[in-house]
Amino acid sequence: MRIVALAGGIGGARFLQGLKVAAPDAELTVVVNTGDDITLYGLRVCPDLDSVMYTLGGGSDTQRGWGRQDETFRVKEELVAYDAPATWFGLGDLDMATHLVRRQMLDAGFPLSAVTAALCERWRPGARLLPMSDDRVETHVVVDDDATPGNRKAIHFQEWWVKHHAALRAHSIVAVGAETATPAPGVLEAIEAADVVLLPPSNPVVSIGTILQVKGIRDALAGKKVVGLSPIIGGAPVRGMADACLDAIGVETSAQAVGRHYGSELLAGWLVDTTDAGVTVPGVEVRAVPLLMTDVTASAAMATAALELAGV
Amino acid sequence: MRIVALAGGIGGARFLQGLKVAAPDAELTVVVNTGDDITLYGLRVCPDLDSVMYTLGGGSDTQRGWGRQDETFRVKEELVAYDAPATWFGLGDLDMATHLVRRQMLDAGFPLSAVTAALCERWRPGARLLPMSDDRVETHVVVDDDATPGNRKAIHFQEWWVKHHAALRAHSIVAVGAETATPAPGVLEAIEAADVVLLPPSNPVVSIGTILQVKGIRDALAGKKVVGLSPIIGGAPVRGMADACLDAIGVETSAQAVGRHYGSELLAGWLVDTTDAGVTVPGVEVRAVPLLMTDVTASAAMATAALELAGV
Repeated sequence: MRIVALAGGIGGARFLQGLKVAAPDAELTVVVNTGDDITLYGLRVCPDLDSVMYTLGGGSDTQRGWGRQDETFRVKEELVAYDAPATWFGLGDLDMATHLVRRQMLDAGFPLSAVTAALCERWRPGARLLPMSDDRVETHVVVDDDATPGNRKAIHFQEWWVKHHAALRAHSIVAVGAETATPAPGVLEAIEAADVVLLPPSNPVVSIGTILQVKGIRDALAGKKVVGLSPIIGGAPVRGMADACLDAIGVETSAQAVGRHYGSELLAGWLVDTTDAGVTVPGVEVRAVPLLMTDVTASAAMATAALELAGV
Repeated sequence: MRIVALAGGIGGARFLQGLKVAAPDAELTVVVNTGDDITLYGLRVCPDLDSVMYTLGGGSDTQRGWGRQDETFRVKEELVAYDAPATWFGLGDLDMATHLVRRQMLDAGFPLSAVTAALCERWRPGARLLPMSDDRVETHVVVDDDATPGNRKAIHFQEWWVKHHAALRAHSIVAVGAETATPAPGVLEAIEAADVVLLPPSNPVVSIGTILQVKGIRDALAGKKVVGLSPIIGGAPVRGMADACLDAIGVETSAQAVGRHYGSELLAGWLVDTTDAGVTVPGVEVRAVPLLMTDVTASAAMATAALELAGV
């Protein structure tokens, strides 16, 4: 069986851990959001790609929920001593090495997809990890510019998300570059060959939504069996601050609203939590199962339910 | 009193520590070699600038002889796990932060001299540190290309020095870019205003020699009171592998040969170790004093002797 999953960071990674257990023989391709990528101190940081790679490769910190196991922050503390900018971003010492290798390879002319493949030589995530695009796409958030009342400014998604904890009101969220970005090599081919496409419970705006904006990906999904899992349970995001993102695009924070936002043009099936049983999405088969990823067993059950809903 | 010193890394830094003690009220400008600078993983590493900055700022590791106090190598060990290139270079975790801040500022358009001034805001080395040039100059070493017998290849100085411990025979040493590089802002003005110019016992080929190749610097020194200290004692370099560099330019490893290599066009005075008493350099006043920098007191005595020889 060939499975394609579109994924953001932590939530996507945890679901994929379960999927690997649920379908150990499947050929799994993960198309990962790169809109959260950011250049810090000249390094290219790809939080979602690295979260999926570390998690599937067994190197993630399951306690803290992001970054590497046994991580330390010596470099970051030293950046603070320099009063450097962007110390609000948690660059760990072990994580740093990933960004250094990536910088070296990008500077040598390799596209991000080749860099990702090279990094995965070490991590062996048991799935093919593809960035959604080799082109630079960066999600920016339009917020009030306090320095000039009445004015607005666009800040990088990470600044909004990590530095400001999504507490600044987002007037809009723009994936800069997405319109002209083309899918990375292998993305469209993998979707074309897929028996099923899964949308893990990742952020529907800045993770899945950004991937869907890359030219050609939405078209490639038309006619494919696509099953999504709601990241919203009982009117609240399971993790992260997806509600602030949904507010920005005028979508209610509910399993039903997100399902309808994706809609029957994209979805064949929509899995919601048992709390949300009764949700309807016109033209889409909705099923309610427990959606809390408390451990790998729970995630595997969710993956099994998704594959069953897809009928594969 | 206004003093200018031309300096390489560790040896220069130790001498300057002594100079600050010997002439606490002097206005000291240090013009630092940047030919050893290397780009690793996209970061711009400036070993000599950082050695001088850390040492004069009280942050260097005096035991190991290079890098930062209380240094760790978590990032480097992780780069080894990635089988990354250039892991032969000892990038420490604390040191890394310096290179990240430098990268950020260079990318923002600041010249190296401005970056150095910003880094020194933290370190307060008690002297004005200037890179010899804001232009990129990189010292390369021409060695045999073992892959193709009879052929030669140029490798970066650091690869030759650190990776190969200067054990490959150097056919020549070339400061790529030096001929077109211009002195950093303030360099020529500082030399012009100086009461004395000191050449610490730094490497005469790849440290002092490289600085002297930058357009205009040698001319600016003409007519100034220049006093040098021999890095060679009793026919051997005090530290480092200066003999391999001297071999490459056909100069004998002796205090006399190095003094004569600099010559009376550059030098007014030449300090050699008591071991080398009797050395003569035509047109240059030679004096013999103990030149082993065993501690700051010894370095200060050397600096005092150099200032006395200059008559300032």
